[in-house]
Amino acid sequence: MIQHTRIAETGKRRIVIVGGGFAGIELAKSLAPADGQVVLIDKQNYHTFQPLLYQVSTAGLEADSIVYPFRKIFEDQENFYFRLAEVQSVDTTNQVVETSIGLLRYDYLVIATGATTNFYGNEQIQRSSIPIKNIGDALALRNTILSNFEKALQIDEEEQLNSLMDYVIVGGGPTGVEVAGALSELRKHVFPKDYRELDFVKMDIHLIQSGPRLLNGMSEEAATKALEYLERFGVKVWLNQRVKSYDGYTVLLDSGEKIISRTLIWAAGVTGSPIAGIRSESLLKGNRLQVDVYNRVAGYENIFAIGDIAAMVTEENPQGHPMMAQPAMQQGKLLGQNLMNLMTGEPLKAFSYNDKGSMATIGRNRAVADLKVFNKEYRTQGFRAWLIWMFIHLISVIGFRNRIVVLLNWMWSYFSYDKGIRLIIGKKKENVPVEEVTEKTMV
Amino acid sequence: MIQHTRIAETGKRRIVIVGGGFAGIELAKSLAPADGQVVLIDKQNYHTFQPLLYQVSTAGLEADSIVYPFRKIFEDQENFYFRLAEVQSVDTTNQVVETSIGLLRYDYLVIATGATTNFYGNEQIQRSSIPIKNIGDALALRNTILSNFEKALQIDEEEQLNSLMDYVIVGGGPTGVEVAGALSELRKHVFPKDYRELDFVKMDIHLIQSGPRLLNGMSEEAATKALEYLERFGVKVWLNQRVKSYDGYTVLLDSGEKIISRTLIWAAGVTGSPIAGIRSESLLKGNRLQVDVYNRVAGYENIFAIGDIAAMVTEENPQGHPMMAQPAMQQGKLLGQNLMNLMTGEPLKAFSYNDKGSMATIGRNRAVADLKVFNKEYRTQGFRAWLIWMFIHLISVIGFRNRIVVLLNWMWSYFSYDKGIRLIIGKKKENVPVEEVTEKTMV
Repeated sequence: MIQHTRIAETGKRRIVIVGGGFAGIELAKSLAPADGQVVLIDKQNYHTFQPLLYQVSTAGLEADSIVYPFRKIFEDQENFYFRLAEVQSVDTTNQVVETSIGLLRYDYLVIATGATTNFYGNEQIQRSSIPIKNIGDALALRNTILSNFEKALQIDEEEQLNSLMDYVIVGGGPTGVEVAGALSELRKHVFPKDYRELDFVKMDIHLIQSGPRLLNGMSEEAATKALEYLERFGVKVWLNQRVKSYDGYTVLLDSGEKIISRTLIWAAGVTGSPIAGIRSESLLKGNRLQVDVYNRVAGYENIFAIGDIAAMVTEENPQGHPMMAQPAMQQGKLLGQNLMNLMTGEPLKAFSYNDKGSMATIGRNRAVADLKVFNKEYRTQGFRAWLIWMFIHLISVIGFRNRIVVLLNWMWSYFSYDKGIRLIIGKKKENVPVEEVTEKTMV
Repeated sequence: MIQHTRIAETGKRRIVIVGGGFAGIELAKSLAPADGQVVLIDKQNYHTFQPLLYQVSTAGLEADSIVYPFRKIFEDQENFYFRLAEVQSVDTTNQVVETSIGLLRYDYLVIATGATTNFYGNEQIQRSSIPIKNIGDALALRNTILSNFEKALQIDEEEQLNSLMDYVIVGGGPTGVEVAGALSELRKHVFPKDYRELDFVKMDIHLIQSGPRLLNGMSEEAATKALEYLERFGVKVWLNQRVKSYDGYTVLLDSGEKIISRTLIWAAGVTGSPIAGIRSESLLKGNRLQVDVYNRVAGYENIFAIGDIAAMVTEENPQGHPMMAQPAMQQGKLLGQNLMNLMTGEPLKAFSYNDKGSMATIGRNRAVADLKVFNKEYRTQGFRAWLIWMFIHLISVIGFRNRIVVLLNWMWSYFSYDKGIRLIIGKKKENVPVEEVTEKTMV
């Protein structure tokens, strides 16, 4: 019978953080001087820089350059402990988290579980489409795209061929726009060299957006420019359209129109990932936890939520803050200070979001940016926005080694018009199978 | 019913190459000026630089930096065609290869399928151990090692703890020696920082070699030095020992001794991977195909074999050439010229192996090298050998981008004593499961 080691009880108060996304990482860092135990639990042993996932999925970056091991981030932080585990539920009465590797006592619990892809209850779409929310998704998409073309080489029949060469992206937010742009670059500069036997005039890229404009969180100016760039890159943008069903082959729109594609990329929205055991009254629309201005979950004294999972509903922000990296990081950082204040009996500081703006990149030399600098709005599009986008993302990637590898890949791609990571390694999505060779045909 | 496109018949002779390892790649390149069709078939869409696989498995390099897409290598070679497929058999009478995507006619067939891990018929070991022969293996090993330590944090009981922290490597050739050295570096410089709660004095690394010395293909001098380095790094080397059985937990040696470990790394030998349909008379010991000095398979006019799968048995080389990159590349290159000579009716040139020597690296600043420069032997060990090893391997990696990434990782590791890719992404080996938490225990 195995005795499970405890995380040594040191007599100090224990802060358990569930989830090592932007919010969880910033919180754990900001707790470095805390006279307590900081325990981070995550399903993975690495932090993922989600804003660049789309580049992994389109063969521009290796997965390993945008993730970073937690243990490495915190190797010099003595009060830090990591456990690779899944949280199953929380017992708030006994102050215990139940995980896949046993029970964990806490004094303060911080829920930083983030968000997951929202399929709006459509199980058929969930089964047949590919989201881009984690490294596994991104690699599956990359493998699927490359496999599609390998298969297409064996196909003559027009509709079957189109089903393999055409792509449908659902969701006109930053991820959808960025994937559509990256695919159009691959179509122009990379795939025709790789697959000389295929005619890439046949490759269609569809972007489907439910509302009347792209990039809902951004300015009208940014949205208009993004649409202009995408159309110039040959992406077919469908506004005011929704996907009704998808069986892995036919995308049926609400309007009755049909698009044939074996690959539906789902970037249409996210929903919070709460944990079992938190009272349902604290759960708002979109599965987010209602928190006060100190990120304390409604109804609890010692349970907090930060990042995408937290909805800090105020008059200014009736929907809570946007589900993005910036509010998550700022909340994590402040909560660290507030937890230390709590432990030493000092007053807490209310959260106030410092909106630095947002950005999306569409492709080579083309991005849109709505920035706030010293509280003044600054909007720019095109080459300058693209440079700003690259700079901000580069310095945000964790780890010096990763930053150099990302920079190197970007420079390489820029000057060679190439994307180097065109590798099929690991899982891919197999929708309706391309019919087997029934008689032995010559290839 | 799907019509399979043919690889367009151009009226030119078709050379089908099965396998894109060192031999296959060199052959296809050397056929660039050929007035024929060059078709490469491989199960993967990328070439793997096998000599650095051990660094992927020990978190030193990302997988993506030692592999390279075939289509990218040959994007400027107009007579080149690639198909992602598995070869099932060959019909030598009708000159047709049967593949997972259909039949493929050939005029000349070149078998360059390489070698696979040899478990010497022991299915139990095959099931429970991890080889290091391809990218999938290497990533599985990396994931397993890292997961072991994550699990070890939850274990108190001494034997269970040892089973997770101890490693057994079977095979004292270059791969075994290199993995043992890399693990000892991780034990010294990396793991103690990552897993502060574990005591790495407990981590044992065993290297088991069936013969009386390490590195059989190399000089006595190199073997002695390699042993000395390994022992200095704290690796327990067992000479003249064989593994009798392994159930995923207990390694039983021929001598009756037992070692407890959940991770057995199998680097004990390789065996050829022939394809079905070739007459069995041409198959020699070790599953290699008997070829003449033109790499023609015995008994055929238009079927050739190159690289590890080919045994060119001569008086000089009664066992055929060593199953290494150098003979494979040289055979591939010459066969390309010979095939062009065949097509134009010119005489063929017999193969003669230019042995440039061999090398193995044991760890930081420590390698052994037996080189041949202008037919003179040059043996060196230690720092100089290590520099030569790095230089040769760096320039041999395919692709400028890859070379830079590998160099960057090496420099980074050298100066920081760190290995950056400590990520658990994808599959791992699960041997005897660590007992589940039976009662809910506090961690």
